[in-house]
Amino acid sequence: MRVACAQYAIRDGVGVANLERSTAAILDAARAGAELVVLPELANSGCDFPSRESALSIAEKVGDTKILDGPTLRAWQEAATETGIFVVAGFLERDGDFLYNSAAVVGPDFFGRYRKTHFWDDEKLLYEPGSNLPIFETPLCNIGVLVCYDAWFPEAARTLALRGADLLCVPANAPDDWVPEGRRWGGLTMLNVHAISHANANRLFVACANRVGDGYLGRSSIVDTTGGVLAFGSATEEELISAEIDVERVLREKQLTKRSHTFGDRNPDVYEELRSAEAGKPTS
Amino acid sequence: MRVACAQYAIRDGVGVANLERSTAAILDAARAGAELVVLPELANSGCDFPSRESALSIAEKVGDTKILDGPTLRAWQEAATETGIFVVAGFLERDGDFLYNSAAVVGPDFFGRYRKTHFWDDEKLLYEPGSNLPIFETPLCNIGVLVCYDAWFPEAARTLALRGADLLCVPANAPDDWVPEGRRWGGLTMLNVHAISHANANRLFVACANRVGDGYLGRSSIVDTTGGVLAFGSATEEELISAEIDVERVLREKQLTKRSHTFGDRNPDVYEELRSAEAGKPTS
Repeated sequence: MRVACAQYAIRDGVGVANLERSTAAILDAARAGAELVVLPELANSGCDFPSRESALSIAEKVGDTKILDGPTLRAWQEAATETGIFVVAGFLERDGDFLYNSAAVVGPDFFGRYRKTHFWDDEKLLYEPGSNLPIFETPLCNIGVLVCYDAWFPEAARTLALRGADLLCVPANAPDDWVPEGRRWGGLTMLNVHAISHANANRLFVACANRVGDGYLGRSSIVDTTGGVLAFGSATEEELISAEIDVERVLREKQLTKRSHTFGDRNPDVYEELRSAEAGKPTS
Repeated sequence: MRVACAQYAIRDGVGVANLERSTAAILDAARAGAELVVLPELANSGCDFPSRESALSIAEKVGDTKILDGPTLRAWQEAATETGIFVVAGFLERDGDFLYNSAAVVGPDFFGRYRKTHFWDDEKLLYEPGSNLPIFETPLCNIGVLVCYDAWFPEAARTLALRGADLLCVPANAPDDWVPEGRRWGGLTMLNVHAISHANANRLFVACANRVGDGYLGRSSIVDTTGGVLAFGSATEEELISAEIDVERVLREKQLTKRSHTFGDRNPDVYEELRSAEAGKPTS
């Protein structure tokens, strides 16, 4: 199957322009032969809002999953139905007075939602966290979703892998990652490095779509089950990247050699601290 | 403090040559001003043995940690005592009729041992696994050790980080990593990628010393707490790489922003599968 990632500039706090831009990206990807396209995080809204009220005013409700409520969500559903493509895209979700940094998995006769579970800094003040890491069993493959900072947590990628994900989709708004440019080997951002590490450690495919422009780093990437980079976006330009992936490899390549297995080689007996919710927490 | 990694060719199944080469590497590092040097995995023996008996015959006992039993271990202890340097190096260990793929942490008046906990393929037939992931509290800093394939398990690096490691030392014998060269971004091997990912996700320093020559990939690396590459070895040549690191950064940089903390941002509620020893295991 052909997977694409669309990286483009998003306008913060403006609904209509983002609806149009994101829908155009979906149609571009379908025309380019992609069966699935990943868009950036918060693709209906951007991530910088003057106030909570302003965020609430452009956040979208899911409503009935057959005919979605929010205008951008509905536009994505129509584009998916029209072209047959699957879309994984971040969106600002409203449910009552609560806000979520969510991702939609939209396909012909398919809707799934993930709510971001790891928050960067002030995001904690705005959003409610999701309560699980779901697997979306689409006709294409089993999809796991991590939204931006989620991908910094190796536990999250591993959990999705253990639950059977074939493909990790990562909508992101990743800005400068604090690594001085001279020390950023091969021009890889940390989102790229984590994507390659997750792909290799878990033997699954990873597709990251990162916002570009306005300080966002672009560098969208599609990574194969070995950790090989199949497609890599520019740091500055709007771009659709795509690659052919063979999802059967995920199942085949968990068994690495006669006696080595990606998950079977784990040694949970020695991971004591991972089981503790308190381990390493800051003391205030 | 200055950290060094020595990458060089090891001779499989030959004790004396490896004793001399490893001791020379330690003295080189001390002369270059390093306070700590990492050597490759199984630095006293190599990793390819004609038989179990042959491996047992060159494996070394630890014995009394004040005056170590094995000749290579003792040579490292003498070099450390003479120069004041700390050494983290892989060694083939024998305890009765059991073999371990171990790492020694040797310093003036200091000895610690870690036994590898994740085995690649046929290693399972030769070695007994270690039963824990210790932290070595040296006067320089808190050291955690992962031996080669251990570093492919994000749980292991995270566990050591949660236990307070400032510096992860990774002695390795990493050969070709199956990523086609054209897809190996920036010439990074998977050992490099995992090292950068662990450093950034856990905000600690990582120093990997990888064997070179005979199909081993070299590319030793020293990585800072952001994931920035401070020193990077050749893919083909014997080399001592080194870098200055500020271990105080580890403590300082766990608090990423006012509201973000490397460990505090974890969400263990959603990592259900990580707590299961059976999750993802192959069915036979």
